[in-house]
Amino acid sequence: MREWEKHIRRVEPYVPGEQPKDRGIIKLNTNENPYPPAPGVLEALKRLEGEGLRKYPDPAAADLTEALAENYGVGTDQVFVGVGSDDVLAMCFLTFFNSKKPILFPDITYSFYDVWAGLFQIPFERIPLDDQFKIRPEDYKKENGGVIFPNPNAPTGLLLPLDQVEEILEANRDVIVIVDEAYIDFGGVSALSLIDRYDNLLVVQTFSKSRSLAGMRIGFAMGNPQLIRCLQDVKYSFNSYTMNQAAIAAGTAALADRDYFERTRKKIMDTREKARRELRKLGFVCRDSAANFLFVTHPDCPGEELFLALRQAGIYVRYFNKPRIDQYLRITIGTDEEMEALTAFLKKYLEERGGTPHGNV
Amino acid sequence: MREWEKHIRRVEPYVPGEQPKDRGIIKLNTNENPYPPAPGVLEALKRLEGEGLRKYPDPAAADLTEALAENYGVGTDQVFVGVGSDDVLAMCFLTFFNSKKPILFPDITYSFYDVWAGLFQIPFERIPLDDQFKIRPEDYKKENGGVIFPNPNAPTGLLLPLDQVEEILEANRDVIVIVDEAYIDFGGVSALSLIDRYDNLLVVQTFSKSRSLAGMRIGFAMGNPQLIRCLQDVKYSFNSYTMNQAAIAAGTAALADRDYFERTRKKIMDTREKARRELRKLGFVCRDSAANFLFVTHPDCPGEELFLALRQAGIYVRYFNKPRIDQYLRITIGTDEEMEALTAFLKKYLEERGGTPHGNV
Repeated sequence: MREWEKHIRRVEPYVPGEQPKDRGIIKLNTNENPYPPAPGVLEALKRLEGEGLRKYPDPAAADLTEALAENYGVGTDQVFVGVGSDDVLAMCFLTFFNSKKPILFPDITYSFYDVWAGLFQIPFERIPLDDQFKIRPEDYKKENGGVIFPNPNAPTGLLLPLDQVEEILEANRDVIVIVDEAYIDFGGVSALSLIDRYDNLLVVQTFSKSRSLAGMRIGFAMGNPQLIRCLQDVKYSFNSYTMNQAAIAAGTAALADRDYFERTRKKIMDTREKARRELRKLGFVCRDSAANFLFVTHPDCPGEELFLALRQAGIYVRYFNKPRIDQYLRITIGTDEEMEALTAFLKKYLEERGGTPHGNV
Repeated sequence: MREWEKHIRRVEPYVPGEQPKDRGIIKLNTNENPYPPAPGVLEALKRLEGEGLRKYPDPAAADLTEALAENYGVGTDQVFVGVGSDDVLAMCFLTFFNSKKPILFPDITYSFYDVWAGLFQIPFERIPLDDQFKIRPEDYKKENGGVIFPNPNAPTGLLLPLDQVEEILEANRDVIVIVDEAYIDFGGVSALSLIDRYDNLLVVQTFSKSRSLAGMRIGFAMGNPQLIRCLQDVKYSFNSYTMNQAAIAAGTAALADRDYFERTRKKIMDTREKARRELRKLGFVCRDSAANFLFVTHPDCPGEELFLALRQAGIYVRYFNKPRIDQYLRITIGTDEEMEALTAFLKKYLEERGGTPHGNV
């Protein structure tokens, strides 16, 4: 081993879902929105000029920050933007989780949390979900260095009601609590209404799901101005200009079209409920979801087998080979047509395999 | 103080140059290119489709990585891309500078280095430039945890000849050495030719200066495949998708137009030499520059006074209120017209002020 190799940071990177280039694939593996962004987004990108691009972007991304503040009814000093919610969350971990006590998050959750903890050498403790995959607020009433959980949780899709979010906040006034609301627009109730009462609360959201802009990498946090200032300071110590001009323009334009946002997220929720009924008819266990995905398991067929069979058929879903969830598939909600192709394939596959489809479980 | 405030990371953020929105300003303060990016860049941005934007970008940014590999004659496994060279350098600090020994960099240099060291709690030592503002390779022959310097250096603009870069490398085989070549295309000789011989060398460059794409935030590192893999691992532990689709498309298109690149950088070098002669006529001390800026001082007029007078006149340059350089201005090379406006103003200002412009110093 070379001497310099000894001082390289050792990490276990997060593994994102595949991004196949083949356009024939039905891609239900990374919780992308099946609909394109609002038409104004492409128009905004077309308006970018060479004279602008040669210059650095506004380091404060004021256009985007102001549009977010207006959209969510908060002050511009309560908004922080980043390169997707992953960037925002990474900055949060770096900024706020610096005690020696472990941070807490669910055992089944977004698998980036333990990666960031590893990267920044933050001690952590995984709190098991109950046997219905629910977060129990009472489990978060112990000494800790911070709390983070997605709501709705991923990959389960289950929503924690706002009073239970508040119960966790009430019990954790001494640490930063981050509610990661990447999927909140698909049927959840945001904790945003609590940021004025809990100065230790950060609500993190993204443009990647409900605003169809995964390709532009835009995420944001909302919280009290002091927290936002601390995040800004760390961000300005890392990279002065994280948001490029295209991202600022696209994000601002996406927020301007509220009608498109409402229509597409409602469509996805409708498709989700239809797909859920169909999957239950095929014998899948398929709990409530407040996200743009379903988390399903079939009592007669191993999760990995289904994952591979679907993949073979050109239908990509997500499979996590992890304790407690290794029989499950996470299926992103696509268009009605895509979900029909999925259920048609599964129906045929399960029939040919010999398992008997049965009623609701 | 609230309990949670005790565990917030304390930092001294980097302060970027101003980005005034007023288009009437002559902006020579952030080393941007005065010319727009190659025409193909805007065309590439116009080709972005909603169907693409709804999906995550390619996490490996393969199009851009391949174009860079081809352009610089290296393997794709020798290239790492990020959100501007600031992001690339931040990732390098996080990945490679983890020993307990201090990293070394010049006392007068890019002022982000000590900010990153502070952010990641990396010990560092500032090595004084000589009294001609030159880097002395012999000063870097001491025990350390890593070495980083810009070449040409900023804000001095001075180039370290390749044999002296190699002298530093030769003396530092046990640590990672980063040569930050943000300005190399304006007359320097890159250390890229050394990456096969020195497996501990990383060469970092950017699209923000010579490729007129500051607004899109694209930087890259080149080095041996093992170093690049380590950087990738840390990057994938921070944010899976740092490069948005617009940045990938714009960067790839910029590389495709080599002729435009050659013409614009040559134009800037010509303008620089012309401006340098004019400034010397006005009595400025103005050393050689291999960058797209000049670092100047006037024996009869304080740097800060000149900075403020220029600002008042709508001409923004950069002033650093720091030891050894507080009488200097860093002036970005703009168009010929912009540089003529600058020198015309300075001539008039110095005349009216009563100092007698005199010859070369």
